[in-house]
Amino acid sequence: MKILVINAGSSSLKYQLMDPTSGEVFAKGLCERIYIDGKLTHKVPATGLKVERDIPMPTHSEAIEAVLSILVDPEYGVLKSTDEIDAIGHRVLHGGDKFVESCIIDEACKQAIRDCIPLGPLHNPANLMGIEACEKVMPGKPQVAVFDTAFHMTMPPKAYRYAIPTKYYEEDHLRRYGFHGTSHRYVSKRAIELMGKPASELKIVVCHLGNGSSLSAVADGKCQDTSMGLSPLAGVPMATRAGDIDTCVAQFIMNKYNMTADECLTMLNKKSGVLALSNGVSSDFRDLEAGANKGDEACQLALDKFCYEVRKYIGAYAAALGGLDCLVFTAGVGENGCTNRAAICEGLEFLGVKLDPERNKVRGEEALISADDSRVKVWVIPTNEELMIAQDTAALCGK
Amino acid sequence: MKILVINAGSSSLKYQLMDPTSGEVFAKGLCERIYIDGKLTHKVPATGLKVERDIPMPTHSEAIEAVLSILVDPEYGVLKSTDEIDAIGHRVLHGGDKFVESCIIDEACKQAIRDCIPLGPLHNPANLMGIEACEKVMPGKPQVAVFDTAFHMTMPPKAYRYAIPTKYYEEDHLRRYGFHGTSHRYVSKRAIELMGKPASELKIVVCHLGNGSSLSAVADGKCQDTSMGLSPLAGVPMATRAGDIDTCVAQFIMNKYNMTADECLTMLNKKSGVLALSNGVSSDFRDLEAGANKGDEACQLALDKFCYEVRKYIGAYAAALGGLDCLVFTAGVGENGCTNRAAICEGLEFLGVKLDPERNKVRGEEALISADDSRVKVWVIPTNEELMIAQDTAALCGK
Repeated sequence: MKILVINAGSSSLKYQLMDPTSGEVFAKGLCERIYIDGKLTHKVPATGLKVERDIPMPTHSEAIEAVLSILVDPEYGVLKSTDEIDAIGHRVLHGGDKFVESCIIDEACKQAIRDCIPLGPLHNPANLMGIEACEKVMPGKPQVAVFDTAFHMTMPPKAYRYAIPTKYYEEDHLRRYGFHGTSHRYVSKRAIELMGKPASELKIVVCHLGNGSSLSAVADGKCQDTSMGLSPLAGVPMATRAGDIDTCVAQFIMNKYNMTADECLTMLNKKSGVLALSNGVSSDFRDLEAGANKGDEACQLALDKFCYEVRKYIGAYAAALGGLDCLVFTAGVGENGCTNRAAICEGLEFLGVKLDPERNKVRGEEALISADDSRVKVWVIPTNEELMIAQDTAALCGK
Repeated sequence: MKILVINAGSSSLKYQLMDPTSGEVFAKGLCERIYIDGKLTHKVPATGLKVERDIPMPTHSEAIEAVLSILVDPEYGVLKSTDEIDAIGHRVLHGGDKFVESCIIDEACKQAIRDCIPLGPLHNPANLMGIEACEKVMPGKPQVAVFDTAFHMTMPPKAYRYAIPTKYYEEDHLRRYGFHGTSHRYVSKRAIELMGKPASELKIVVCHLGNGSSLSAVADGKCQDTSMGLSPLAGVPMATRAGDIDTCVAQFIMNKYNMTADECLTMLNKKSGVLALSNGVSSDFRDLEAGANKGDEACQLALDKFCYEVRKYIGAYAAALGGLDCLVFTAGVGENGCTNRAAICEGLEFLGVKLDPERNKVRGEEALISADDSRVKVWVIPTNEELMIAQDTAALCGK
């Protein structure tokens, strides 16, 4: 089977054409500057080929057309005909409390995604544009929506409810949803395979640490709690997001600087996090490490704060699960940040976490990084959200 | 020595006249409805005497005058003359980053308390009114300010800094401060005595659970982290305060319901917490237990959520401290809520926490409640903020 995986943003669109069984990626790329002018970057991993083209993309439809056109291009393509595409899988940010798993896209599904726009005002409209562009360009092709929130829908009410008046939950659906669910699902599933034990015997904490970061507590293969909330702002500090703060901080800033709630939240989402703590040096952890190594105290504080808050969440989730058997690092910083992983695990010996310094040098590869005498097994497991989306799509659309 | 301890609110004033060495309380009481009409409730613990009087209190000065008058009253008083009062100790909510300990009140101290009004807009002005009323009514009497934030000033930057632009920290002093510091100090000091080990060998988590609730992580007798933040809103859910929530929740509510930041924060402070989760049944944990016992699911959720979040903070602070030797419960719910203590500790066996069900039946008394084979010692230690204030006052004003 060949599945086209689409992640549509407001002015961009990422794609991968892949085999859901082997995980082979036939082609992948990115459309940028949709609605502005339009640029396509296309890669064929098997040959190392890379093409960049300026192509007018007045809407997402032209972006999808450009993708299909390059996929069947005699020189740069990997398909003879778009008929070879069996189905399309879409990443959708917010499934609200309507979606506990992936689903075939029909009118009811699209309406439900539309209903969730108040909860995901930036992403869901873009995701819908991607879906409708595919419908227009490839009418009748089966499509599946895979939600970033779905994996977390197994959380119990004590984890997902906020202690605010019930009407905000019942009428406005304000609760913890959590994000990166496709990654948490993929990685925790793989961790269970690697541990070689029944899911029911495993208490797992997954640290998805990247540009955005979130942790999840997994028992019996199901999410019990996660650090992001109604929105992806909550949890640990991220590249540019503040993570958890006292809401009174927002009140103070709005009042003193005469900001609207939206302006304040934009600041908390786009200008905060390690970027802010490093006094604007960088939102990239590699730059922060370089800065800290040169003695920049703000860069060091940014790294210290990040690792400290991740460590606290690991402790909190061990308490939530009643113990810990397996700790997993994934995503950019989780897969590559050896120094951060070591700093996060420092002081977790009481939990039975003991890294092996040599094993922990691994970057971007699946590996056990705990010492042989570590009671808790610590793994690096590269995430693969696209593969998970492709597999869900194949399962729902397959014969 | 006889110390008068004052806790002045915006329309109320609590007092205790006490011996800072023995802790004996000679008299205590409450002025209410200051600025409205005025009511004094006065008690003499030694005799069980209780008086209630309507006394006009147009300002805090008249409230203080009423207190002094009843203290020397031939029938209801405990003093021959107010000269017997050696000094006055005031509880002050917010010391900002200016006060790391208690201090003698002079013009500079008053100005510093005034400078912290933006950080404690509700409480600091009232605390100042109490101080100035005492100055007016008892000119020349030594006064000491004891700050609710001071104990937490030993937190490292990774614990107190928020991941928001540095100017908000440097110019506006927005950071985690924490509250209930006098209680956390008193209780952790007592825990160190009870443990019979040097402070440097003890990792302690203090759960101050009452109307307002906060936890602190204490190592070497010093606070390393605490759950309240810039304001007392943050941390675990409380009687009527929401505790930690995604700031995006506030944004959503402000936008949809056309609320100002102040209106939204009032809702989060006054109409949230377990009161909201129980669908308005009660903010009192005894009522919630009664409701839950009758099968009220909302009451049960409120209790579950509260205990779950406290448990997660204990795990987070164990991770912050690199282990746990001693867990302490204090304040109304902490001292009396046997069921809640049991629910909080359930699932913390992996940390070495094991309650003794019989010992845990204790209410309001100092007691070890962990089992003999519990690696972590769990204590109930009744808090006594007034005694701590009296002791600080005596130490600073004594010869």
